Amino acid sequence: MQINKNLIADANQQQLKKHQNKLAIAAEDVNDLETVLQKLSTFNVAIPSWALGTGGTRFGRFSGGGEPRTLEEKLEDVGLIHALNRSSNSISLHIPWDIPDNAPAIKSLATQLGLHFDAVNSNTFQDQAGQKHSYKFGSLHHVDKAVREQAVAHNIEVIKYGKDLGSKALSVWLSDGSNFPGQLNFREAFQNTLESLQSIYSALPDDWKVWVEYKPYEPNFYSTTIADWGQSYLLASKLGPKASTLVDLGHHLQGTNIEQIVSILLMEGKLAGFHFNDSKYGDDDLTVGSVNPYQLFLIFNELVEGMDARNMNHATDIGWMIDASHNIKDPIEDLLQSVQAIKIAYAQALLVDKKALKAAQQNNDVGLAQEILQQAYRTDVRPLVAEASLRTGGALDPVGTFRQLNVRENLIKERGLNTVATGL
Amino acid sequence: MQINKNLIADANQQQLKKHQNKLAIAAEDVNDLETVLQKLSTFNVAIPSWALGTGGTRFGRFSGGGEPRTLEEKLEDVGLIHALNRSSNSISLHIPWDIPDNAPAIKSLATQLGLHFDAVNSNTFQDQAGQKHSYKFGSLHHVDKAVREQAVAHNIEVIKYGKDLGSKALSVWLSDGSNFPGQLNFREAFQNTLESLQSIYSALPDDWKVWVEYKPYEPNFYSTTIADWGQSYLLASKLGPKASTLVDLGHHLQGTNIEQIVSILLMEGKLAGFHFNDSKYGDDDLTVGSVNPYQLFLIFNELVEGMDARNMNHATDIGWMIDASHNIKDPIEDLLQSVQAIKIAYAQALLVDKKALKAAQQNNDVGLAQEILQQAYRTDVRPLVAEASLRTGGALDPVGTFRQLNVRENLIKERGLNTVATGL
Amino acid sequence: MQINKNLIADANQQQLKKHQNKLAIAAEDVNDLETVLQKLSTFNVAIPSWALGTGGTRFGRFSGGGEPRTLEEKLEDVGLIHALNRSSNSISLHIPWDIPDNAPAIKSLATQLGLHFDAVNSNTFQDQAGQKHSYKFGSLHHVDKAVREQAVAHNIEVIKYGKDLGSKALSVWLSDGSNFPGQLNFREAFQNTLESLQSIYSALPDDWKVWVEYKPYEPNFYSTTIADWGQSYLLASKLGPKASTLVDLGHHLQGTNIEQIVSILLMEGKLAGFHFNDSKYGDDDLTVGSVNPYQLFLIFNELVEGMDARNMNHATDIGWMIDASHNIKDPIEDLLQSVQAIKIAYAQALLVDKKALKAAQQNNDVGLAQEILQQAYRTDVRPLVAEASLRTGGALDPVGTFRQLNVRENLIKERGLNTVATGL
Amino acid sequence: MQINKNLIADANQQQLKKHQNKLAIAAEDVNDLETVLQKLSTFNVAIPSWALGTGGTRFGRFSGGGEPRTLEEKLEDVGLIHALNRSSNSISLHIPWDIPDNAPAIKSLATQLGLHFDAVNSNTFQDQAGQKHSYKFGSLHHVDKAVREQAVAHNIEVIKYGKDLGSKALSVWLSDGSNFPGQLNFREAFQNTLESLQSIYSALPDDWKVWVEYKPYEPNFYSTTIADWGQSYLLASKLGPKASTLVDLGHHLQGTNIEQIVSILLMEGKLAGFHFNDSKYGDDDLTVGSVNPYQLFLIFNELVEGMDARNMNHATDIGWMIDASHNIKDPIEDLLQSVQAIKIAYAQALLVDKKALKAAQQNNDVGLAQEILQQAYRTDVRPLVAEASLRTGGALDPVGTFRQLNVRENLIKERGLNTVATGL
Repeated sequence: MQINKNLIADANQQQLKKHQNKLAIAAEDVNDLETVLQKLSTFNVAIPSWALGTGGTRFGRFSGGGEPRTLEEKLEDVGLIHALNRSSNSISLHIPWDIPDNAPAIKSLATQLGLHFDAVNSNTFQDQAGQKHSYKFGSLHHVDKAVREQAVAHNIEVIKYGKDLGSKALSVWLSDGSNFPGQLNFREAFQNTLESLQSIYSALPDDWKVWVEYKPYEPNFYSTTIADWGQSYLLASKLGPKASTLVDLGHHLQGTNIEQIVSILLMEGKLAGFHFNDSKYGDDDLTVGSVNPYQLFLIFNELVEGMDARNMNHATDIGWMIDASHNIKDPIEDLLQSVQAIKIAYAQALLVDKKALKAAQQNNDVGLAQEILQQAYRTDVRPLVAEASLRTGGALDPVGTFRQLNVRENLIKERGLNTVATGL
Repeated sequence: MQINKNLIADANQQQLKKHQNKLAIAAEDVNDLETVLQKLSTFNVAIPSWALGTGGTRFGRFSGGGEPRTLEEKLEDVGLIHALNRSSNSISLHIPWDIPDNAPAIKSLATQLGLHFDAVNSNTFQDQAGQKHSYKFGSLHHVDKAVREQAVAHNIEVIKYGKDLGSKALSVWLSDGSNFPGQLNFREAFQNTLESLQSIYSALPDDWKVWVEYKPYEPNFYSTTIADWGQSYLLASKLGPKASTLVDLGHHLQGTNIEQIVSILLMEGKLAGFHFNDSKYGDDDLTVGSVNPYQLFLIFNELVEGMDARNMNHATDIGWMIDASHNIKDPIEDLLQSVQAIKIAYAQALLVDKKALKAAQQNNDVGLAQEILQQAYRTDVRPLVAEASLRTGGALDPVGTFRQLNVRENLIKERGLNTVATGL
Repeated sequence: MQINKNLIADANQQQLKKHQNKLAIAAEDVNDLETVLQKLSTFNVAIPSWALGTGGTRFGRFSGGGEPRTLEEKLEDVGLIHALNRSSNSISLHIPWDIPDNAPAIKSLATQLGLHFDAVNSNTFQDQAGQKHSYKFGSLHHVDKAVREQAVAHNIEVIKYGKDLGSKALSVWLSDGSNFPGQLNFREAFQNTLESLQSIYSALPDDWKVWVEYKPYEPNFYSTTIADWGQSYLLASKLGPKASTLVDLGHHLQGTNIEQIVSILLMEGKLAGFHFNDSKYGDDDLTVGSVNPYQLFLIFNELVEGMDARNMNHATDIGWMIDASHNIKDPIEDLLQSVQAIKIAYAQALLVDKKALKAAQQNNDVGLAQEILQQAYRTDVRPLVAEASLRTGGALDPVGTFRQLNVRENLIKERGLNTVATGL
Repeated sequence: MQINKNLIADANQQQLKKHQNKLAIAAEDVNDLETVLQKLSTFNVAIPSWALGTGGTRFGRFSGGGEPRTLEEKLEDVGLIHALNRSSNSISLHIPWDIPDNAPAIKSLATQLGLHFDAVNSNTFQDQAGQKHSYKFGSLHHVDKAVREQAVAHNIEVIKYGKDLGSKALSVWLSDGSNFPGQLNFREAFQNTLESLQSIYSALPDDWKVWVEYKPYEPNFYSTTIADWGQSYLLASKLGPKASTLVDLGHHLQGTNIEQIVSILLMEGKLAGFHFNDSKYGDDDLTVGSVNPYQLFLIFNELVEGMDARNMNHATDIGWMIDASHNIKDPIEDLLQSVQAIKIAYAQALLVDKKALKAAQQNNDVGLAQEILQQAYRTDVRPLVAEASLRTGGALDPVGTFRQLNVRENLIKERGLNTVATGL
């Protein structure tokens, strides 16, 4: 299924007048409207292939209807999202859940949908049928060299798939860790991981990056071998310039000041990218912006400040990706909500009066600094986000239009009610 | 498979001399040795039917070998545990994972193994094949009365199964909650839950109890409808004297003083029982005593104090059960470790010099109070636990004997390497 | 110092045109504008007498200038706040920091400033010079009856002060707890607390309430005797209808769903009121709305829903108070920011489309429920809050006007640079 | 006051027989008893000068009697502790609370008491009377170069004091951070801190070290400029080989796996030392070992393993210090309890069967690894600790002997009941 552009245009037409009024008012407070709109227009967030189906927990999964059954259908779904919001122009594949057997055909389908391929993701946290060694006790950190070599080989194979599709980065998330004190020698686990990553690093094409994710716990509940940004940074430093740290918003202990970590990683030139989601407890993988939107804004505030300080391109110099688990919402709608929330936070961050903020900071005028941030945050930036979407051919209101056009109903008709996408 | 008593006796024989020496020394510091040993000897912890197979996380599961394939084999496994430690004389069934199709036969098998049936557990957190209504959005709290009625009917059916087997309690854990702000009207969810529980309560036989579990999060990540002891207590109060609160050690926010909750529930006559496990982060379901054994001791200290204050029988007036997820350890060995850890904590609590502690408390002699508790905690009580096991026909060292007798190897021979027990 | 009304009117005049434009746009999306404005206009938040000076931590305090040196000057400061925002028409006194030696004179000064007296607060967490018994080991829960009686007598004296000033509630926060396992018998501590509160309850005038606060930790770090809403509720239930539970936003373990607690307490008719602040870690006592404004909105969403369900008056049936520690910001400005943040959250909650939300909940349309809440939250409601202030004679922009009128500079001139207000 | 050695010997005599029996039994399970005893005998933990008085919280402080009034009396108190436990042979001074006006006299007093001077601690988290610039908004990270220079100068002065006394390390704990989003530019704060530390580093004598502490929050509640081990490590790496990271057990978010951090810092040669305490919530500064003694054991397990792997001397190659706040216990008794708890954990760690553990890890025999650790932990090692004390002239039971000899009563006689030591 693809959405006819005229349908989106029709939907926009109904809301256009009201939108224009709101935009005019919003514009009054924005200094450099065109720049803001231009930045919003070029901003894209990758969609992971595994997020297009219903997710679950260890207690169960409740599937939805019309889930994509093949990689092609997953591309189709991202195409639908991108058609609606014009901000999701890439897909991030997970191997082996989504092996592209026929790379040229897949690439061609993607191109047709206006999509390209973001980072490829390896999986050494599950055993696949017929696999020689088990990852029950880890992969790149494993005490047994044979297991490590198998995991390294898998990562190199994932790079190969990525090369065929035009990806430029390998994203590595390890569940390696331990459930009980004594199970692991932390130092050796770290050294084994480093050695394994060095092997993978050596196999990276010249223009590729490797992104090293960290996470404090789950699925291991005593230790994780790459547990925090410091450990990921240490590995990335030892690996070299092509390695950097990937931040998943849900991969932090409660209370962690994530925005400060973002600032420091940017300062050190080691911020690879983001996995967006939101959480109240642990790695809850809820829709980004649904629990603590102010934190999301504060993170974007650091991103804008830190990237500008290094003359980085907001749209392309950091890998932006959603990584959530849509357990009870329609995955496509949830992804549309996610991208909207991200763009809203980004727009708010763009509106921050940096010069005034800098001055307030220099004066330790804490109350004023807060006012400046909240002035931007409390602004209703939805008209700006809508205008950016409109100008690039998307829907003024992607979520509403998704509903209005009965997208899910059509997908169910096409694919059936009892489909289950690969993934968690 | 059953363990021949002679094999255990032989194993004990090898360690007997050393044990007797250690016991003699340990006894020197114990005022009322026989009472302590007698209490340890009669103490039993129920084994849940779902804990006999390998557990998993949402990221995957790595099965072990020789897992029980039927309810009969699960009973067998509990029989093995009980033979080794003489402290696991009951099994707690989960419906529908372990429906006893032929109750008399199952009951007879249990009796033969020296076992009886602890609380029965309902399951309304997963959908079963052919189920009319889905629990995707909850069960007893559901907005739709038809779903609530289905869930109530299931619970009443579980009571029926329990009656046939001689159980005396229904244990209710609800995953009902919400993932996103706005999803739920908290008040109505609470009222619906209360009404549903009232229907179930009405169906309870006169000599039965209903135990209401609480949990702050997972599998829902914004709210849980019975989120904390206060909410469970409120429901139990409104339900009546047959209802009380079940404490699962992993079902608390970080930092919760669980022992204080235990004390208050005991004070109010509303402590139903325990699900034992341990955790470092959330509901990690690790082996009890493997992460924070001092906390376990402190909880037992309150249990002993609070039960004695109400003249309760330690062995029978509270429901003791393990509820852990054995993801990477042999389930039987893990359960043996668990029961040992519980008995050690219990023994330490029995050794606390209550009179001296009371006096220190009256004098606000905080340093002395700490010394008194740690005097008991730092004592090596393993000889006492071993002696209690020995006297009741168990192994001096259940975990070691389990290994020495190659129990798992024999089970794999009997059942095969690629078995998967029902459960999470 | 008092602010001349003309100065505020002048300041408003400068912003009036822009305000009116913004209000007109905002009004388009509000169904019942006048009702919303009326509710915002009558909404007031009490200012605690101890919040008018600079606060500190155990590591030190850095005083600001022009802090109020007397109770009269504290009233003056609240008068300034109320003149600017017309939403702070009462002060909450803390005894013995602010003993009103001459009640009629103080009352008359308050009346002149348009203020009245909110709940009075007792203090049994510090020793005062000349005090017979120390509260080192607690007050209402103390093992020594003489200490408990002294603490009860203090509370009764506080009621007396409150009666003279026209207060109608006693607010009780206990720091009673323990720092080490073994220090306390939890059950007896609870019973002693209950007994002490019963004595205080008996001394309450007929038209008074007693509000029982809870807190999980600090200044005690192992247990607190009234640790959570459940324990406060249990006490309030046993005390009777004049007792209810006070919620301080900072008094929760990380991850607590406070809005759910609010909903349940409202359901049970036991929600006394609020102490507003914000936090990232523990009881950080930061400016309300400065860390997680969405949570504040969600709490107000429950308040509006739950109060409406019981036909309660938003303005008067709950005690609203700020309780923050202004360690590095100007206390008056911080309080103005706080009240603005509260009114913004309240206004957003008033804008929630309750009917649509109810329908979405009935349909388990989780995505839509989120859209409905965020539709209200993302709206820029500042024009509504400004209009409500304008209509009642306050400033359109209280914080800005406070700065523009150089209020602090004038206070420093009057009072000096090195003043230190009583309080933490 | 000093304790006559004969008094200790007399006290020991009373317990000697029982001790010898227990030691004999304990010795049966220890492979290399003399090595263990020798290691325990040479192990010392420094006492901070500020820990000898009663501590407090922001809500108040309840002083005890007989607190040391001068630096000389603080040395005396450490002398008492060391006389009793023979494991506290150094004191760590805090400047400016304990400025040694007459260094030779102080040094001579220390020598007489068998003490030397551990790391010196600077204080830029409080303003001192007459100080030119305030640290209200930070010190080494301050936006104003003049403030940073003042703070650098203070640290250099502290080094000077330390040199006069024979210290070899400067310990830097910064409270620098922010309370509100927007207050701080994280990157510039980090760069300013680095630059300031570089100036201090340049002033370090050749044989000195600088230890950089980290802490996630308090007294700032939004961000701390050196917030975690990663940020401290980053600074220490940039500074050079004389800089390393100091771990305070209370300075971590809940759930942090501290033992893993210890292992990694050791691996990188960047572990400076420890500040021992315990906590249930935040930086509670409770007696080490009073809340989670198993964690303390696990940390020592990593220390022993990691130090042995680098051939480090347990006694001297890491800085061991207590840093707790004795709010309601006798400070000297609390410190004695602390050192006992540390030595117990150290002894347990020494008993771990490293070879067997290594083998279990190589086999991923998780259950066995747990058994091996707990075998050591469950052993009653108090006879070993007592024997080490006895052999070096200390008390078999330092806490008991402290009470038996009425040390505090004698100090109160000497110093009075209403003394207040400098410190928090």
